[in-house]
Amino acid sequence: MPCQSFDYSSIGFNNNSGEIYGDRRKKVAIVGGGNWGSAIACVVGKTVKAQSDVFQPTVNMWCRDSRKPGDTSSSIADIINYTHENPKYLPGRRIPENVIATSSLRDACESAHILILVVPHQGIPQICSELRGKLQEGAHAVSLTKGISSTSENGVVKMQLISEDIEKALGVECSVLMGANLAGEVADGKFCEATIGCKSLENGEELKTLFDTPNFRIRVTTDYEAVELCGALKNIVACAAGFADGLGWAYNVKSAIIRLGLLETKKFVEHFYPSSVGHTYFESCGVADLITTCYGGRNRKVAEAFIKSDKSLQVVEQELLKGQSAQGPPTAQDVFEMLEIHNLTEKFPIFTSVHKVFVGEHGETELYDSLRNHPEYD
Amino acid sequence: MPCQSFDYSSIGFNNNSGEIYGDRRKKVAIVGGGNWGSAIACVVGKTVKAQSDVFQPTVNMWCRDSRKPGDTSSSIADIINYTHENPKYLPGRRIPENVIATSSLRDACESAHILILVVPHQGIPQICSELRGKLQEGAHAVSLTKGISSTSENGVVKMQLISEDIEKALGVECSVLMGANLAGEVADGKFCEATIGCKSLENGEELKTLFDTPNFRIRVTTDYEAVELCGALKNIVACAAGFADGLGWAYNVKSAIIRLGLLETKKFVEHFYPSSVGHTYFESCGVADLITTCYGGRNRKVAEAFIKSDKSLQVVEQELLKGQSAQGPPTAQDVFEMLEIHNLTEKFPIFTSVHKVFVGEHGETELYDSLRNHPEYD
Repeated sequence: MPCQSFDYSSIGFNNNSGEIYGDRRKKVAIVGGGNWGSAIACVVGKTVKAQSDVFQPTVNMWCRDSRKPGDTSSSIADIINYTHENPKYLPGRRIPENVIATSSLRDACESAHILILVVPHQGIPQICSELRGKLQEGAHAVSLTKGISSTSENGVVKMQLISEDIEKALGVECSVLMGANLAGEVADGKFCEATIGCKSLENGEELKTLFDTPNFRIRVTTDYEAVELCGALKNIVACAAGFADGLGWAYNVKSAIIRLGLLETKKFVEHFYPSSVGHTYFESCGVADLITTCYGGRNRKVAEAFIKSDKSLQVVEQELLKGQSAQGPPTAQDVFEMLEIHNLTEKFPIFTSVHKVFVGEHGETELYDSLRNHPEYD
Repeated sequence: MPCQSFDYSSIGFNNNSGEIYGDRRKKVAIVGGGNWGSAIACVVGKTVKAQSDVFQPTVNMWCRDSRKPGDTSSSIADIINYTHENPKYLPGRRIPENVIATSSLRDACESAHILILVVPHQGIPQICSELRGKLQEGAHAVSLTKGISSTSENGVVKMQLISEDIEKALGVECSVLMGANLAGEVADGKFCEATIGCKSLENGEELKTLFDTPNFRIRVTTDYEAVELCGALKNIVACAAGFADGLGWAYNVKSAIIRLGLLETKKFVEHFYPSSVGHTYFESCGVADLITTCYGGRNRKVAEAFIKSDKSLQVVEQELLKGQSAQGPPTAQDVFEMLEIHNLTEKFPIFTSVHKVFVGEHGETELYDSLRNHPEYD
């Protein structure tokens, strides 16, 4: 890999990226170059090219430069621009040439009409505060990030959706895209589905145009809170599934975990967002994503290894995920805190027990009892 | 294995099986000694013993004597009574000693209050006609059989549920029990769930008493048509999942198949039984059974082997199932015929394509297109 910097002058950012004067076509930027960000770049790179009357032909992608001072290797952005591949997070998949990576957040996103956010949720406040006021007027965002956050007002802890954080920090409307989407399979162009949850159907339909392909089928719903919470909470259920795998609990139990986990997700949404509608659990973001994650996702994998060893979660993550993290454990902690404040832990025994296994308060017996004695059977 | 016949006089049938004069306790009989019949005998043998105030302590189990003339080996019933194990269909699991097997249908079932039917549906008409009028007054039945049947009246083909066949032929009310229940795991006492669909809640609750244990958790609903159809149609979806496995289609596709298959099931019930309610798909008989079957069931296994080889379905079944059969292919055929009569095949592309793959009219491309172009995306 050459260690000189990529010559960005050859491609141009902002208003030079294939744009013509008075261009009304939408400019798309991706914030995040992990495995899911790189996979979605494979999709979006192709869709904007195929719809050059609607979208500007170049997609910018911001990749955090994680080199330490004195590190003379190339940045991940440079590597992507030279090789059209992300060897760290998505090796072996070709990122289209009209996707241009950069380590500069502002270069990537300035004047964008559509911002695709796909970064760990801990990084979102900083990113949004840097970008506030820099997007195109009338711009909107879509979050692919899974997790929840919480705020404390006058000592009262309140749960918040990541998309709400983004809307507040960025001052634009934020939709979500969630679904049964293992990154490698999406990048390979294998068939799969996703769900867009939006506030305004106009933005939702525009995002469908951006993401939908013959092999990546999108459905749009305005039940955005349920869509986002399905995406976040499924990672807790996947940890329970991983524990079950690690403990050798076989098929019937794992299916019961997935079903009861789906019902806890539904009950959680109905409690905290009572205006939500019911069909969303049958969408890709609901039952399909849950199954994929409980069989093939990284949270399942980490939880299985955690319960089978004496290693800490941090060590297990380092060994298995090559610098990425599993979102299930922190989401389980956030959810547990919310449930405790609202005196609801007994109604959500799987969510509760997953957190307690990770912090060492529950073992195999308590986890098993959280299933056998589930309030669904009352 | 001794080849003389078991000495039945030592245990007694009908009104001698531990019964006392004027006994008001319910007598339970199981019809069917395959792997699911034997597994449910493991559950029911224990529950009747633990509730000796409610149920008579002996459970009779009818096992078809499949020996050919001149075969001097012991009958399966004799083997079970000697060894308390069914070595042919459920090796390695102990059947409780209070379960008494017999090759005589009438000996097993005469004067029973509760009849548990767990036989391939092709055998049901003959069995029911033999038993009509032989059960206790006020008796009721529960069917664990998966499948559908059809009748032809004045040239018009009409779908019928197996439980309806039983009710008509036997003249008693028939509930159904369906759920995520791989037989070996149930027999091992591993945790799992099931759903009882009943017409009268009184019978449903009595059946719950009979089946429910701390590790086999039962929920009861009166949405019996949806419960039974979930149990039957999931075998078609499992065949699609098996094809996907055989073709190497990975996680995202398989989850989409399960989700779209669940939606076809829901649409099928809503079309043919519009009075059905919606929550049943979240029960064990719905999403959980579907997942278990699509990952661990025999239909998945047979379909995977079928699409990977040039062998006929019959050969594949013989090689893999040791004399049992997969219910998915005949159910797919019955459903396809119903859909064709009602001009509905295009609305149920997975159900339709599974049948067409088995009869050689669809290959990989058509099956893939049945997913990518599913009407759910319209």
